[in-house]
Amino acid sequence: MAMNKLNRGVAIVGAGMSKFGAFPGKATRDLFVESFAEMQGSVDKGVDVKDIEAVFIGNYSSDLFEGQGHTAPFMTHAVGLNPVPATRCEDACASSSAALRSGIMAIASGLYDMVLVGGIEKMSDLPTSEVTDTLATASDALYDVPAGYTFPGFYATIATAYMDKYGATPEAWMSVGIKNHDAGSLNPKAQFGQRIRELMDIKIKSAEKKGRPIPTWADEMEFMHDDRANLVIAWPMRLFDCSPVSDGAASLLLVAEDLAKNFTDNALHIIGSGQASDVTLRYRSDLTTLSSAKAAAQQAYEMAGVGPKDIKVAEVHDCFTVAEVVATEDLGFFSPGQGYEAAMEGVTSLRGPRPINSSGGLKSKGHPVGASGAGQVVEVWKQMRGEAGARQLEGDIDVGLTHNVGGTGESCFVHIFGRK
Amino acid sequence: MAMNKLNRGVAIVGAGMSKFGAFPGKATRDLFVESFAEMQGSVDKGVDVKDIEAVFIGNYSSDLFEGQGHTAPFMTHAVGLNPVPATRCEDACASSSAALRSGIMAIASGLYDMVLVGGIEKMSDLPTSEVTDTLATASDALYDVPAGYTFPGFYATIATAYMDKYGATPEAWMSVGIKNHDAGSLNPKAQFGQRIRELMDIKIKSAEKKGRPIPTWADEMEFMHDDRANLVIAWPMRLFDCSPVSDGAASLLLVAEDLAKNFTDNALHIIGSGQASDVTLRYRSDLTTLSSAKAAAQQAYEMAGVGPKDIKVAEVHDCFTVAEVVATEDLGFFSPGQGYEAAMEGVTSLRGPRPINSSGGLKSKGHPVGASGAGQVVEVWKQMRGEAGARQLEGDIDVGLTHNVGGTGESCFVHIFGRK
Repeated sequence: MAMNKLNRGVAIVGAGMSKFGAFPGKATRDLFVESFAEMQGSVDKGVDVKDIEAVFIGNYSSDLFEGQGHTAPFMTHAVGLNPVPATRCEDACASSSAALRSGIMAIASGLYDMVLVGGIEKMSDLPTSEVTDTLATASDALYDVPAGYTFPGFYATIATAYMDKYGATPEAWMSVGIKNHDAGSLNPKAQFGQRIRELMDIKIKSAEKKGRPIPTWADEMEFMHDDRANLVIAWPMRLFDCSPVSDGAASLLLVAEDLAKNFTDNALHIIGSGQASDVTLRYRSDLTTLSSAKAAAQQAYEMAGVGPKDIKVAEVHDCFTVAEVVATEDLGFFSPGQGYEAAMEGVTSLRGPRPINSSGGLKSKGHPVGASGAGQVVEVWKQMRGEAGARQLEGDIDVGLTHNVGGTGESCFVHIFGRK
Repeated sequence: MAMNKLNRGVAIVGAGMSKFGAFPGKATRDLFVESFAEMQGSVDKGVDVKDIEAVFIGNYSSDLFEGQGHTAPFMTHAVGLNPVPATRCEDACASSSAALRSGIMAIASGLYDMVLVGGIEKMSDLPTSEVTDTLATASDALYDVPAGYTFPGFYATIATAYMDKYGATPEAWMSVGIKNHDAGSLNPKAQFGQRIRELMDIKIKSAEKKGRPIPTWADEMEFMHDDRANLVIAWPMRLFDCSPVSDGAASLLLVAEDLAKNFTDNALHIIGSGQASDVTLRYRSDLTTLSSAKAAAQQAYEMAGVGPKDIKVAEVHDCFTVAEVVATEDLGFFSPGQGYEAAMEGVTSLRGPRPINSSGGLKSKGHPVGASGAGQVVEVWKQMRGEAGARQLEGDIDVGLTHNVGGTGESCFVHIFGRK
């Protein structure tokens, strides 16, 4: 067995993202250029992008979403970097974490000193029903898809199993949604950067306009329970338990650790990286945890020499609200079966003792699947550098973590970032 | 600029492939298991596959061909390797060379000691016209596809430009096809393992059966010129200038160089690896060469410390016959404009002084696009170990090369293998 250790350290010296949202007039390359420009501007001491030696692009399926394969060299051309080597990495919704890990290995291997990691996805050109079918291809096309499973169904299965085992109620999931929209309302890049009470007002006004007035709800939780406001998608997952259909891109600039000071005195050093796979849901003995997430976390913690208590900022994969609760347990922030109460009690809210998804998470910020992992790193970059504006976490944010899931955990990546 | 050098050497200690062909009853995972079993059996001193620590799968688009995304963990499960990390690498028809390079970097990075590199594609479930459309997504979907370009058209453009510049005639392309079917007839894994004169007989008998008798051709070249036998696909590319629609898989076992002796005394050491990108055809000033191939070759030769003259076995990317001629020039085997004469004069035939594509190439062996690059390595593995049977090259085959193109050279990989 190899040591869980890199031959050469790697640091992030620049990070940027496009706004996440639905952009019918824009091509993927436009969004990627937007993220690249922000990344370039974020490098404190400047960078000549001609020094970038390789590009790794995370993308789930531009093939199905846009009829564009072989996307890595086209993205590379869009930012003026041809003829540098360009490779696409794919692990469903964890594709840009796969690209990040590939970029890390590329530098640690000795082949390169400076690497661009990108994440891209443009989903909104398809109708939502086709997006759901397209995403379903990330499950087993021989067995799961013919059985009628799509991802809302998978995560609903996880949620009901969790409720059955631990006595949680749908309010647990709803409180994650409320919390993440609270945080996302402070993130100018978020696709749905509104608090739930703002969304209530939009809903009421829209119903009035249509001549079909609906009640004024007393509070968010009442709104979340109303079938007219918050459709059941796959019980207990309702509309406000699901991340949206999104377009977006993110860019990260990686350099060999020994070169980081040439670009910034405030780099994010990769101190931990873990990755694991798992079988599909129907083979698992326990539906309330992702074993790939636990394995990836263990690898990353070991490499970093830190534990859950050391993590000051954590972006976790809340494609559905239940996924955030499971993630906080798999990462060791809470014991199994205790994550849902923590969410309901505000422990994981922006000003709570253990903030989770300060960006608003995939739920509020948006989930352009191939860009989501790199987007998580952009939030950690901002928080660790004190650049997160109104949603800046308090205290010394010296260790950060990202947790990015492909499918229902058939892939999972955990990365840990520190200072040096 | 990083040194073009790996922090840790890497060797291939096992290699296997499925038969290439059209297998309507089989799933991709069946073909992958077939290749994995052959790989496992090829390890001279045996291997416990539970020691494999990570999997990199090259695949162009199971998304579009089969409605299966996130294919890496599913393939990993099929060979019993979950929960090891699994990532898909994509660079169109060079996807499994991207996986190979990722596997090399993964070991050189220090993260792993033993890695499985796979290549898979199952194309034959779609009708041929849809396959052509699916492959066209590897060109620029914003500009090339709406202009009506598909890959036969792209390579026809290259062929006409070459003919215009150097005075070549279609006989040059035809002689590549005849040559590669000659070699492929000696390869039991080849999809179309028939010599052209055998295919002539099949054609004649089939026409007789249908009550529409056709002439008996005097020789292969006459057959190749007959529009009834050899349809024009995109002039000057005819049917027998095009690689077929294929299903197939290949598996390679990589270990850190210092561990190779535990598995075999006859390993293939990675002595060179190069990768480059390029803009799409319409931006290029010279259509008769792939600049990405020249750049990738230069990187690989430099890393290996060898030159074109040292290469004893070369598998090059003949998705269309013209591509082989261009490849032999880009790799420095012949000067620009001299590759076509070499092909016509038999220089590149199996028993010629500079044999190219002893496997039969993509033309005869088949081109399951995501598996083709790893399949090339399987041929080099067999030739360098003296296990190529009737098509075994003569002399000491101590240095081998693979050249694998994505699209029309928007990506290109060159790998060089040696003994140590």
